[in-house]
Amino acid sequence: MNIVEDLTKIVGVQNVLTGEMVSQRLDCYLPAHAMEALCVVRPETTEQVSMIAAYCDGHGLALVPQGGRTGLAGGAYTRPGDIALSLERMTTICPVERSGLTIEVEAGATLQAVQEAASAADLLYPVDLGARGSATIGGTIATNAGGNSVLRYGMTRDQVLGLEVVLADGTVLSSMNRLIKNNAGFDLKQMFVGSEGTLGIITRAVLRLRPNAGLKATAFIGLSSFDAVLELFALAAAEADGALSSYEVMWPSFVDAVVGRGNHRSPLENTHALYVLIEIESHRADALISQVVTSGWERGLIDDASIAQNIGQANSFWAIRDDIDTLCAGSDPILLYDISLPQTHMKSYIDSLQDNLHIYLQNAKMFVFGHVADGNLHLVIRPGEHGHHDAIDALVYLPLEAIGGSISAEHGIGLEKRSYLHCSRTEAEIDTMVRLKRALDPRSTLNPGKVMPLS
Amino acid sequence: MNIVEDLTKIVGVQNVLTGEMVSQRLDCYLPAHAMEALCVVRPETTEQVSMIAAYCDGHGLALVPQGGRTGLAGGAYTRPGDIALSLERMTTICPVERSGLTIEVEAGATLQAVQEAASAADLLYPVDLGARGSATIGGTIATNAGGNSVLRYGMTRDQVLGLEVVLADGTVLSSMNRLIKNNAGFDLKQMFVGSEGTLGIITRAVLRLRPNAGLKATAFIGLSSFDAVLELFALAAAEADGALSSYEVMWPSFVDAVVGRGNHRSPLENTHALYVLIEIESHRADALISQVVTSGWERGLIDDASIAQNIGQANSFWAIRDDIDTLCAGSDPILLYDISLPQTHMKSYIDSLQDNLHIYLQNAKMFVFGHVADGNLHLVIRPGEHGHHDAIDALVYLPLEAIGGSISAEHGIGLEKRSYLHCSRTEAEIDTMVRLKRALDPRSTLNPGKVMPLS
Ligand SMILES: Cc1cc2nc3c(=O)[nH]c(=O)nc-3n(C[C@H](O)[C@H](O)[C@H](O)COP(=O)(O)OP(=O)(O)OC[C@H]3O[C@@H](n4cnc5c(N)ncnc54)[C@H](O)[C@@H]3O)c2cc1C
Ligand SMILES: Cc1cc2nc3c(=O)[nH]c(=O)nc-3n(C[C@H](O)[C@H](O)[C@H](O)COP(=O)(O)OP(=O)(O)OC[C@H]3O[C@@H](n4cnc5c(N)ncnc54)[C@H](O)[C@@H]3O)c2cc1C
Repeated sequence: MNIVEDLTKIVGVQNVLTGEMVSQRLDCYLPAHAMEALCVVRPETTEQVSMIAAYCDGHGLALVPQGGRTGLAGGAYTRPGDIALSLERMTTICPVERSGLTIEVEAGATLQAVQEAASAADLLYPVDLGARGSATIGGTIATNAGGNSVLRYGMTRDQVLGLEVVLADGTVLSSMNRLIKNNAGFDLKQMFVGSEGTLGIITRAVLRLRPNAGLKATAFIGLSSFDAVLELFALAAAEADGALSSYEVMWPSFVDAVVGRGNHRSPLENTHALYVLIEIESHRADALISQVVTSGWERGLIDDASIAQNIGQANSFWAIRDDIDTLCAGSDPILLYDISLPQTHMKSYIDSLQDNLHIYLQNAKMFVFGHVADGNLHLVIRPGEHGHHDAIDALVYLPLEAIGGSISAEHGIGLEKRSYLHCSRTEAEIDTMVRLKRALDPRSTLNPGKVMPLS
Repeated sequence: MNIVEDLTKIVGVQNVLTGEMVSQRLDCYLPAHAMEALCVVRPETTEQVSMIAAYCDGHGLALVPQGGRTGLAGGAYTRPGDIALSLERMTTICPVERSGLTIEVEAGATLQAVQEAASAADLLYPVDLGARGSATIGGTIATNAGGNSVLRYGMTRDQVLGLEVVLADGTVLSSMNRLIKNNAGFDLKQMFVGSEGTLGIITRAVLRLRPNAGLKATAFIGLSSFDAVLELFALAAAEADGALSSYEVMWPSFVDAVVGRGNHRSPLENTHALYVLIEIESHRADALISQVVTSGWERGLIDDASIAQNIGQANSFWAIRDDIDTLCAGSDPILLYDISLPQTHMKSYIDSLQDNLHIYLQNAKMFVFGHVADGNLHLVIRPGEHGHHDAIDALVYLPLEAIGGSISAEHGIGLEKRSYLHCSRTEAEIDTMVRLKRALDPRSTLNPGKVMPLS
């Protein structure tokens, strides 16, 4: 059996990459890892994807679906002998359907290309995240990506109306529903959203678009306690009348590190116990944000606030929140976590993690920020020289079990978090995941070893 | 084997109903059908549910989960020899969790009881439908119920954060997530939402609540064409800034029948080609609705409009929209359909269905209304004496295939629509549903014969 030759018959010689063309690629953004796959196959059609899957399934080969390889959980990681299936040639974006507010796209289209197509029709594709230029629609669906507007518009799952998926045995499961309501039998697409390439290869999707929400108003706020952060959130959600689109919290360690080292001006003069970035999207955005800030001030929740006077200033606020590159710059290893937990536990969880981390590693640094409205915090930990990845994982993940937290709010389990899955899922849940995997991929052809402890 | 005796050992003698206690119950609201089950078992705990499932699974007995039995697709229908499992004793509603905006409830709690618990905490459980007093949380989750506020808040699926489900073999699958974001492995609950009791018995749920959206403003509008209905929708969605909560269309046949026969006053003086009921929920609801009506008027989309001046008047508008009882009253048989289709096809679909119906049955009457914003139309057909149910099903369902419509927007497939599932789902989709059913319920213990053509 000559695998490369056989795959070449399906996709043509230019589209089976081998040797350096493979090893020069990284599988994942973080933890960065050079691809070790036997080859990368680049199909152009769903039919070719189906033939590749059937071939691998018939020959006991592991097939790893890959989009933009910006994932943060090792989900697209390949081992020697694996076949990587890249969707990079399947990038068609069909014209926006204005009446139904939908768009049909191939899975390899980038998030940014889809955002731009929507925006050209004066509509909104509301999923947004820093990797927009490389992350693909298939990858964002496979990881059920979140981002900055989940509060208002939901996760990627909430944007997907229809999916075309190729199963491990090559079956093309076309579920290209365009309807908002369709209760004709099981809603199968839900199984594939967030399954990280282990249940099927996503080749095409129908996405839901939204009316353009009008203007944006942005404020950068300093507060004196975490309780004030939560109270201000309740106030903003109520007063903004459904138009609150972001409520991002930053601990001072984060703001100090980014503003100090990056090319930023601090929006507020003094330092504060906590910072929040608020965004409202509405025709009346300016009036609503002033109202929220005024009410917050009157109730003593806000210590200081800066409302952006123009788009440039709003962008400069966001630039602080998004400047993960500055945070991660330098040669020290960094670890990035993406947890969720009930808001009421956030303060004590972070305080005690900080303490435990310092007991374990005197020089460790932790930077905390996140989508507090969604219960989602990102932690960047710089362990310094002597920190063991495993030990820090344990410090971060184990306390989540008792408080009903999740080891992954957004980024998924991939390879990185498999051994901690039991912190967030019961044995019966994990067993049922395995049952589902066996039902759809009995020979474990698709992305084996990912997500579940054994697969 | 004495089944009744064995089940009595699990739940006690009062909780296994037999004989007339069974046959006096109806399985479903429409088509009404007297229960034929061997007995009705009424567990009080998840553990009892698990023991009952394991018992039935081990003895080749069919187990039919039942909530309020208000379903409209025959999903809770029982045959002689079936065991009905009623959740009516599992009605606990835990206190609202204000910080996370969640509530934990047992599956037998009614929709109305949950709405009231939310409302007592000045919060909103946004699913609402006419059967609220009897329909249960378990039933609304099992059917992924829609209702009047889908436009703003989504279907029941969008409200479910966590589920506890008992599988056919008695496994308790507890997925009581409370987090808005949790990508720790597959989101298993999604499989059970909308599975109509065929994949698991829902025993408990964590539901998402919303901030109370403030005031409501309601308008009843007359329009001269279906194009105007669609244009006004786009305008209202844009101007109401995310606060549009209902956009219900009624054809004149519907309004005439209800207003003529029921106890209603017509909100508008003259008759119109179409009617729309708009509702906006916002602190500024009054201002927003005036603005929408004014803009619609200026653009020539609105022929006449009445804005409710008080709650009484708003309720009287809704009473017309909701008066299905008047529509269905009388001894003639009626057929109720619940389809969805792209908005652009609605007019021609209804026109040609009307024509075909009249060719087939001169005296047939059809009344059309629905959630046009969601692409969802309800049809009530009074076939008269000579109409065959099957023939009318064919007239309604078959044309949906070519236009990408669905034979069930909300009510589900149950027993009623199984043989038309192929109009809305491909063979590969139906095969995959069967695969999933076999994976979770290999002996087809749970609600056999429902949803899929063969199971
Ligand atoms: C700077 C930066 C910021 C980020 N911000 C966010 C954020 O705010 N929120 C968030 O949720 N994530 C964020 N991410 C993570 C990442 O961008 C998302 O996970 C993204 O969805 C991955 O898309 P991708 O196309 O790069 O997928 P890849 O990295 O190629 O793959 C990710 C996983 O999906 C699978 N997969 C990919 N394509 C397919 C397909 N077509 N069919 C089946 N399976 C497939 C892979 O096997 C793998 O398991 C960020 C990443 C970076 C680098
Ligand atoms: C007047 C009226 C108005 C209605 N309006 C709407 C509407 O606007 N939108 C809409 O979507 N529906 C509507 N319906 C339909 C109906 O109310 C819904 O389908 C409702 O969700 C059924 O809930 P139930 O508890 O009565 O379920 P049941 O009728 O008892 O059961 C329905 C299905 O769910 C399954 N089931 C029930 N409980 C469980 C459980 N705990 N675990 C697993 N499976 C279970 C049953 O096996 C069956 O297949 C309406 C019905 C009536 C009578």
